[in-house]
Amino acid sequence: MTFNFSITKSTTQGRLGTLTTPHGEVKTPAFIFCATKAAMKAVTPVQMRSANTQIILSNTYHLMLQPGGETVKKLGGLQKMTGWNGPMLTDSGGFQIFSLGHGSVASEVKGRRSTNRPKTLLRINEQGAKFKSYIDGRTYFLTPEESIRVQRNLGADLIVVLDECTPFHVDQTYTQQSMRMSHRWALRSLNEWQTHDDGSQKLYGIIQGGVYPQLRQESCEFVNDHNFYGIAVGGSLGADKSQMHDVVSFTMEMVRKDRPVHLLGIGGISDIFSGVKQGIDTFDCVHPTRLARHGGALVKPANNQGTREHINLRNSMYREDDQPIENDCGCETCAWASKGYIHHLLKAQEMIAYTLVSIHNIYFMNQLMHAIREALANDTLDSCQKEWCT
Amino acid sequence: MTFNFSITKSTTQGRLGTLTTPHGEVKTPAFIFCATKAAMKAVTPVQMRSANTQIILSNTYHLMLQPGGETVKKLGGLQKMTGWNGPMLTDSGGFQIFSLGHGSVASEVKGRRSTNRPKTLLRINEQGAKFKSYIDGRTYFLTPEESIRVQRNLGADLIVVLDECTPFHVDQTYTQQSMRMSHRWALRSLNEWQTHDDGSQKLYGIIQGGVYPQLRQESCEFVNDHNFYGIAVGGSLGADKSQMHDVVSFTMEMVRKDRPVHLLGIGGISDIFSGVKQGIDTFDCVHPTRLARHGGALVKPANNQGTREHINLRNSMYREDDQPIENDCGCETCAWASKGYIHHLLKAQEMIAYTLVSIHNIYFMNQLMHAIREALANDTLDSCQKEWCT
Repeated sequence: MTFNFSITKSTTQGRLGTLTTPHGEVKTPAFIFCATKAAMKAVTPVQMRSANTQIILSNTYHLMLQPGGETVKKLGGLQKMTGWNGPMLTDSGGFQIFSLGHGSVASEVKGRRSTNRPKTLLRINEQGAKFKSYIDGRTYFLTPEESIRVQRNLGADLIVVLDECTPFHVDQTYTQQSMRMSHRWALRSLNEWQTHDDGSQKLYGIIQGGVYPQLRQESCEFVNDHNFYGIAVGGSLGADKSQMHDVVSFTMEMVRKDRPVHLLGIGGISDIFSGVKQGIDTFDCVHPTRLARHGGALVKPANNQGTREHINLRNSMYREDDQPIENDCGCETCAWASKGYIHHLLKAQEMIAYTLVSIHNIYFMNQLMHAIREALANDTLDSCQKEWCT
Repeated sequence: MTFNFSITKSTTQGRLGTLTTPHGEVKTPAFIFCATKAAMKAVTPVQMRSANTQIILSNTYHLMLQPGGETVKKLGGLQKMTGWNGPMLTDSGGFQIFSLGHGSVASEVKGRRSTNRPKTLLRINEQGAKFKSYIDGRTYFLTPEESIRVQRNLGADLIVVLDECTPFHVDQTYTQQSMRMSHRWALRSLNEWQTHDDGSQKLYGIIQGGVYPQLRQESCEFVNDHNFYGIAVGGSLGADKSQMHDVVSFTMEMVRKDRPVHLLGIGGISDIFSGVKQGIDTFDCVHPTRLARHGGALVKPANNQGTREHINLRNSMYREDDQPIENDCGCETCAWASKGYIHHLLKAQEMIAYTLVSIHNIYFMNQLMHAIREALANDTLDSCQKEWCT
C-alpha cells in the first residue's frame, strides 16, 4: 500500500474519507489513541486490535529521550517494535518540550489551570529549543531538522513539523511572532523531509495563530500553500468549549479541502461531534485512556441517566453491581466483567483494572467514530449525536 | 462435571493424573498460578487461557478483607466474577495472617531473611486468630469455621483447612504443639465443610510437622485417616533446597496414594522436578509472575548459556536486542515482542511490560508442566529435566 486520501462523501454535517498508509487504511472521521512512550498504557496491541482500533500515535519527545530514535530504528521502527503494525503518527516533540518546559503549557494551551512541574526548557531561539531530559538531566537541542530526523528513525507513517506551542495567556503580538517562527520552522521541517523522502512517510503542517482570526488566516494560507500532505489544527484554541468551537470554525472555513485535517489534542465526545461538523477527519487525545486509569468508564447517555460522559467505577455504589459497564457494549471487558469486580480491582490497585477499563473506553471511542461514519453516510448525524452526547 | 481424581500412570519418577472439578479438568502434574486478590497481576483471564493455564488460586485472607466473601458471592463467586471460569483453589487465610502477623513468616517458613512488615496478628489461641486489617485497621477473628464459611462464599472448587503457619526458627516442642492445634483446627474445618457440603467444593487437609520426621509422620497419619479430598504438604520445609528435598521425601513416603497431593508455595524449576519425582501432583508459587514484574523472564538453559533459570530484561545488554525472550517459545509475547522493546517498557515503567513478561512466564511454566507430563508418559523425565534445568 502507498499513501492516499480520498473523500467519499462531503456534506455540511462533515465528511467521510479513507486515509491509506503503507501500514493500512484509516476510515475517517477517526480517533487516534496515544501510545505516548511507544506503548498503550495497560493495553497490548492484540487488545488494541480487538477493540477495533485503526491508528495510534507516539510522542517524539519521550522517545528521543528513551530509548532514542536510533534504538527504535534498530528494533525495526515503531510499528514493528510495538507489535502494532498498523497506521501510526508521531508528533514533533514540540508540544511536550514547551509544555514540560514552561511547566504549564499543556494546561494553558487548553485554557486550564497551571501546574507545578519543574521547568526543563532552557532556551528557545530561531535555531530551535534547548531543554533538559526529565530522565537523566542530559541537555538536548531540538531543531526542526532534528525532529524530522528522529521521526524518520521512529518510522511512523504520518509525521508532524516542529512548532512552538504558544501558551494561552500570551497576547496577539507574541502569538504572531511565535506563529511566524513556527512557519519558518515548518519550512525547515519540510525541506529536511523532502531531502530524504523515500515514500514511507508523509508530513503534516500545523496551523497556528491562537484565538486571533487574522493570524489563523495567515497560518491557514501558509499551510495551504506549501507541500504538506496533511494539515493539523494546533495552537491555543481558547479558554472554553465555546471559544474552541469558534476558533476551529473560522479556521476550518479557510483550510483547503483536499487534505486530511487533524485536530490536535481534542477528544471529548461533544467536541468530536462539533469537530466532525466542521470537517475534521482525525482527532487525538489522552482522555479516554487516562480517564480509564482513574476508574472512569465512558458510557452512552442512555446508560447513565443522561448526565455525564462517564461513570466513576471507584464509587462505592458499584461495590455489589454485577452488571457490565454497558449492557449493550461489545467490548472484551463488558463480555464478562461486572462493575463490582472492576470496583474491587480499582480499590486493590490491581493492574488489570486499568486494562479492563481502558479496553472498554478504546472500544467505546472506536464505536463512536464508527457510528459517526454511519450517520454521515445516512445523513443522520443529529440523531447520532443525541444517542452519544449528553 | 463432578469431582474426580484419577491416576493414569504411576512410576518411581512421578505420576500422571487428571483432577476433575465442576469447572474443568486439570492434567497433573500441574502448576497453580496465584491470583492473590482475585486477579492475576497484569494478566487478563483471556490472556491466561491463551497461555494454556489450567488452574489458578486466590487468597482468602486478602479477599475476606476486600471485597469480602459476601460481596464475591453476590458477584457470582470467584470463577464468574474473575472471568476465569476454570478450576480454582483458595487457601485458608492462615498463611497470610501468620506471615503478615509475625512480620516475617513468609520468609521464615522458607528459611529466608526477615522483613520489617508491621505486625497485624493480635492474638492466637485455640479458638482462632485475631488480627487487624492492613487496609482499614478493622479487627477480624478468623476461626477454622469462619475460614470455611468465607471460602464457601468465594466458591472455589478446592478449598483448604485453616492451619497455624509455624515459623522456621521454632523448636520441636513448639512445632508439635502448633501441629496438634492445626489438627484440631482441621477437624473443625472438616466438620464445618461436611455440615454444608453440597458437592460444589472439596476440602484439602494440610500436613504439618516442620522438619521433624516423627511430627511429619504423626501429621501424615492424621491427614491420611480423615476424610479430606486432597492433601497439601505445608509448614516449614527447612532452611535450604537440600533440606526441603529431604522433608518432602520422607513426608511423601507416608502419604496415601489415592488422593491429589499439593506442595504449598514451591515453584522453582528444579524444585518442581524434585517434587514430581516424589509424587507431587500440583504446585503453586508467586515466583513466575512476581519475577515477571521485576523484569525477570524464565528461559530454558539452552537459551541462557545454561546459567540461571531466568534473564533480567532490565539489563542494558538487551537495549538493542531485536530477538524475542526465547526464539522457540510459542507464547503471545515471543510472537512479536523483542527483548529490546521490553527493556524499554521496563525502563519507562509501562504497565504492559509486566503483562508481556508475565504472559511469557505463565506460558513457560505451563509448557514445563506439559513437557513433564509427556516425559512421564514416555519414561524420559531425566532427559526432560536436562532440557529445562540448569
